[in-house]
Amino acid sequence: MTERLRDLDESALLARIFPVYAATARDPREVPVGPGDDAAVVGAPGGTVVATTDGMVRGRDWRDDWSSGHDVGVKVAAQNVADVAAMGARPTALLVSLVAGPAVAVEWAVDLARGIAQVAGEAGASVVGGDLSSAPEGVLVVTVTALGDLGGRAPVLRSGARPGDVVAVCGSLGRSGGGLALYLAGERPVDPGADAAARTAEAASLMAAHRAPRPPWEAGPVAADAGATALVDVSDGLVTDLGRVARASGVAIELDGAVLRARYADGPLSDCLGPDEALRQVLAGGEEHSLVGCFPAGTDVAGIPGEPWHAIGVVEPVGAAGPVVRVDGEVPDVRGWDHFAPS
Amino acid sequence: MTERLRDLDESALLARIFPVYAATARDPREVPVGPGDDAAVVGAPGGTVVATTDGMVRGRDWRDDWSSGHDVGVKVAAQNVADVAAMGARPTALLVSLVAGPAVAVEWAVDLARGIAQVAGEAGASVVGGDLSSAPEGVLVVTVTALGDLGGRAPVLRSGARPGDVVAVCGSLGRSGGGLALYLAGERPVDPGADAAARTAEAASLMAAHRAPRPPWEAGPVAADAGATALVDVSDGLVTDLGRVARASGVAIELDGAVLRARYADGPLSDCLGPDEALRQVLAGGEEHSLVGCFPAGTDVAGIPGEPWHAIGVVEPVGAAGPVVRVDGEVPDVRGWDHFAPS
Repeated sequence: MTERLRDLDESALLARIFPVYAATARDPREVPVGPGDDAAVVGAPGGTVVATTDGMVRGRDWRDDWSSGHDVGVKVAAQNVADVAAMGARPTALLVSLVAGPAVAVEWAVDLARGIAQVAGEAGASVVGGDLSSAPEGVLVVTVTALGDLGGRAPVLRSGARPGDVVAVCGSLGRSGGGLALYLAGERPVDPGADAAARTAEAASLMAAHRAPRPPWEAGPVAADAGATALVDVSDGLVTDLGRVARASGVAIELDGAVLRARYADGPLSDCLGPDEALRQVLAGGEEHSLVGCFPAGTDVAGIPGEPWHAIGVVEPVGAAGPVVRVDGEVPDVRGWDHFAPS
Repeated sequence: MTERLRDLDESALLARIFPVYAATARDPREVPVGPGDDAAVVGAPGGTVVATTDGMVRGRDWRDDWSSGHDVGVKVAAQNVADVAAMGARPTALLVSLVAGPAVAVEWAVDLARGIAQVAGEAGASVVGGDLSSAPEGVLVVTVTALGDLGGRAPVLRSGARPGDVVAVCGSLGRSGGGLALYLAGERPVDPGADAAARTAEAASLMAAHRAPRPPWEAGPVAADAGATALVDVSDGLVTDLGRVARASGVAIELDGAVLRARYADGPLSDCLGPDEALRQVLAGGEEHSLVGCFPAGTDVAGIPGEPWHAIGVVEPVGAAGPVVRVDGEVPDVRGWDHFAPS
């Protein structure tokens, strides 16, 4: 019989979860006080701390028939770590809040912790605290707070882009959204002309990217060191997120459609989705958590060390149309994700 | 007609909530980057950051027929600020996650923000970020992460209590639990002998303490400066929380029943609940968030500046019974709050 949260008391449940998170424990200079006291104490050697919080809700942000607890853990941790990276910071610590109904399987909760711990471990962060709350039947909410350290760097804001800057991407585009589209279509890749086995493997890879993304968070501090003037992660879609940069910076952004097609839409994504939907996902697909930055004119973005950056456009003066994002001179019709709007 | 979350898009809702939190904004040296970017940047002048997270769930942690959005905001913020204080730290920043079904009233969400902002303001902290997620109908979860600064102090842990230490309380005991008992009893104070008007006022005060506690968080850093060897806030009940200190420190704790009765149970609490239930709430009532500390033998706790501290017991060597908490030599029968156990 499946063991459920209602079958354990809180301390017994914590006894299952704590060892998973303990594996993420760092040097005591980095985490002087870990979980188990009223609060944790985390090193902030740069004299400031970067902080962000982001949650996932069952039935809205994931479906149990698609995603495992591990997938959810990876995703909720990765999106928070990406937000820290998008400030130019290195993640140092995560805190996890789990709000769950009594019928949730204990193994699901442990698997969630394993997913979070995996990302924490890869990102060099420790899980330093958390909170468990019971909820009415059926409710399952995971909220993560990520902390980070700038190491003395100035934070890279959305507001620093200047006309002439190069716009560049680190990581993939459209894959998470493409995977979601495949799930919603019943996992049927749309182009029957492509090789079936390769298409199936690629479709599986897109769907995995949707369930458990692995954004290039290491590139955040590297971009800051390379002089990035603005930096965001792709949460709600490339055009939507760059639109925030454009508004905050008072600029327009011009993207190169041919580059976006050639590098991100053509090939496997297009084989699975068709060329139009592939480009739409590149421009509008959310939850990718890749980094998009602006760099001073003349920056050799291909020469930035570590994970590769690719130029996709330029920053222009704001014109009569306002702080818009254009692709080949036109404002594309994309709809970002809106949490409460009727769909 | 009541305006509900489903009637607004996310940016319109944020436009209502942001100004409430903006009123908590501090000096830019304390919060170099507030809400609106990928993450916030908060000062950590002591070179470390204290971090804790704690959430509340509708139907488990509050009832809408008892508590307003403002009450819930005050309570969820206060319990997090108390956890920061219980490390000996000063709160610097709060992050708020709201997970809500589409039928939640917009005014409730704004009122929640006002409650959180009130505590942030009183505690000297800024609300620096957050997350909004829609949820299936009926779900309402608020999670707060609090950050704090030790100002160069060593954190005051649970594990530092030593035999001979004085055990002392700052703040009330049993009032939140007493208020809950009154709610559960249908708001009928039990002692018909006490003056009806005074009793009614006192009952209302207890019930308010349950809905929206105001723990003495300012006393956390003061206790650290006064040499506290161990410090906790009363989350799950005095005996339960001191039991954690006893186990972490490898000591026993002996409390003085006469002092607990005279200072905390007798009088208004007893008038409302009767003497037995009043003492039970003093020992076992949760969600009070007062501070309980251990201080080196000979400390004049009455002389600690600021909010008053009162001695209630002593730390003793651990004996054959293990790291127990006794009242007048006996281990009291209290049941702490357990989130997932069958009730």
